[in-house]
Amino acid sequence: MKSGKVVLALDGMGGDRAPDVVVNGADIARERYPDTSYLLFGDPARLKPLVDKRKGLAPAVEIVPAADAVTADDKPSFALRRRRQSSMWLACQAAAEGRADSVVSAGNTGALLAISMFAMRMLEGAHRPALASFLPTSRGETVMLDLGANIECDADNLAEFAVMGSVFAQVLLGLDAPKVGLLNVGSEELKGHEEVRQAAAWLRRDGSPVNFHGFVEGNDIGAGVVDVVATDGFTGNVALKAIEGTAKLYTGFVRDAFRTSTFAKIGYLFASGAWVKLRKRVDPRRYNGGVFLGLDGICVKSHGGTDQLGFAYAIGVARDLVRYEYKSKLVEGLARLRQVTSAPDSPEEALQASGGTA
Amino acid sequence: MKSGKVVLALDGMGGDRAPDVVVNGADIARERYPDTSYLLFGDPARLKPLVDKRKGLAPAVEIVPAADAVTADDKPSFALRRRRQSSMWLACQAAAEGRADSVVSAGNTGALLAISMFAMRMLEGAHRPALASFLPTSRGETVMLDLGANIECDADNLAEFAVMGSVFAQVLLGLDAPKVGLLNVGSEELKGHEEVRQAAAWLRRDGSPVNFHGFVEGNDIGAGVVDVVATDGFTGNVALKAIEGTAKLYTGFVRDAFRTSTFAKIGYLFASGAWVKLRKRVDPRRYNGGVFLGLDGICVKSHGGTDQLGFAYAIGVARDLVRYEYKSKLVEGLARLRQVTSAPDSPEEALQASGGTA
Repeated sequence: MKSGKVVLALDGMGGDRAPDVVVNGADIARERYPDTSYLLFGDPARLKPLVDKRKGLAPAVEIVPAADAVTADDKPSFALRRRRQSSMWLACQAAAEGRADSVVSAGNTGALLAISMFAMRMLEGAHRPALASFLPTSRGETVMLDLGANIECDADNLAEFAVMGSVFAQVLLGLDAPKVGLLNVGSEELKGHEEVRQAAAWLRRDGSPVNFHGFVEGNDIGAGVVDVVATDGFTGNVALKAIEGTAKLYTGFVRDAFRTSTFAKIGYLFASGAWVKLRKRVDPRRYNGGVFLGLDGICVKSHGGTDQLGFAYAIGVARDLVRYEYKSKLVEGLARLRQVTSAPDSPEEALQASGGTA
Repeated sequence: MKSGKVVLALDGMGGDRAPDVVVNGADIARERYPDTSYLLFGDPARLKPLVDKRKGLAPAVEIVPAADAVTADDKPSFALRRRRQSSMWLACQAAAEGRADSVVSAGNTGALLAISMFAMRMLEGAHRPALASFLPTSRGETVMLDLGANIECDADNLAEFAVMGSVFAQVLLGLDAPKVGLLNVGSEELKGHEEVRQAAAWLRRDGSPVNFHGFVEGNDIGAGVVDVVATDGFTGNVALKAIEGTAKLYTGFVRDAFRTSTFAKIGYLFASGAWVKLRKRVDPRRYNGGVFLGLDGICVKSHGGTDQLGFAYAIGVARDLVRYEYKSKLVEGLARLRQVTSAPDSPEEALQASGGTA
């Protein structure tokens, strides 16, 4: 565990309801984590009155002026080249240069990925960053990655994502040996394309840095079969959004069903406590805080539309990743992965990776 | 519209509850579709008593003896080579040789794909078969394909799947120009990998055989943004199962919520009519009947665990595809696609396909 203060760089101008949500979120987080202080990047004329309004927040916050801001419509390449003085850029730079331990932003996702990659560079042993987040399951929550940072992934990328997700779940869920699955179209060893079979062959080897469960299918995500689901960014992005869309669809179906008759409406009223409980269980704010893993630094992406509770949750994720030394644990995991993957394939593995039958 | 009788070949021994569910399903379908008769393949000693028990069914059914049956655990290659006398093989052969117009089976999916492909071959202009099915959405239902027949797909495959899905939706949903989307990680033209961008460029051209909406994302499936969602079999399989898993998860969450207090339980009782309506709306039997599209023949795959109503629904899908001449419409659509794709790329299209910026 890291000792001393944790310093977080906050993008004060990122998100649909910035800077209010950022300042209010920091205020909630300040009470939860007295060990944490903040560098708040943005327009002082807008930030200072908000900070001063909140009793006790000012001592924990240093406002750092930023003359520009990344907009929601900025292309990543434009933000990277032309928004050097933005709150997002300066916050990432502070984390990259060690003035802060981590950065949190609710701004433009693509821009944040481009800028944080450029400013922080990749961690030793990691080739591509992955976007990770928690999803609710019937047994609690599961980490899924990559959610869209990489459209095409090779076997090395997939194996690295498995390690990143495993360390992430260790740190944030407090698990000793999280169960890790690779997303595939079936659970048998010969299913899927070559990349996913090769990654699985590596993760199964003796000395593997993860507790590898094997392949999982789309329905295993919600069932909570594993603690970590690793996949390429195309599949992960589609699966995440399909899950969100289905959750919304079913919520709508249930609401519609309760509007169909007077009896149903009475039932709805009697059950109002149940609804509150249900909403709490699937509250998107509890799952706020996607993280770019694999960078030489910690970068947490809050949903752009979240409220102050959601932003405080994202701050908590950043703080825990620093406090429980995510980065050094990941370096160690990736080094162990490299030892495992550098050994030549056994004849059985070569056959599995090629999709042949024994 | 095809005139005369429709003859369907039924795999009498396929599925978890065969042959009962098959015979009972045929009996329900017989009342719905008086224009349809059945070749029922399997063990006569088991089938005949079941058929004779159902008044009025016998005249519509001819039992065709099959000495063997494909099991749920058979590998596709094994079933293809070693189960030549199975009810599944003989039913597919009957459809391939024109003794039946279509085949319906609730048996082993991989075996059915292998056998039907081998027996029926591909339709003129189609390179790979795709597994298609309906999904419930907030606006009705959407066709999704490929759900797992092809793990890796090129741009030609994706464009063909779009045409197959479009004709499928025309025939089964009665739509003149179904809206077709390609599944991707964003809606902008430059998103995604080269295959999906190239397929989109073709489908956008003048003379395209489909009403192309553009790219759709995972959450657009449940929102019913388009009538047809086309994608590769890896992504489609994961998305389908993620959707099914989420539906199950949320149903469980709602059930749990109503068990938490006496008030909630009372509410549940008042709302029982609403629950019945809800269950009807998402009844998996209504979405039973995946179809292998692109074969030179019609092959409908019922869920292995469905009941007689579900099996009757699958029979209805097969009957409608024959009656409304799915095959000849698809040949026409694929020919139009070939005209469109054989033209050289415009400079803009070449740039889009390569992922460059204009």
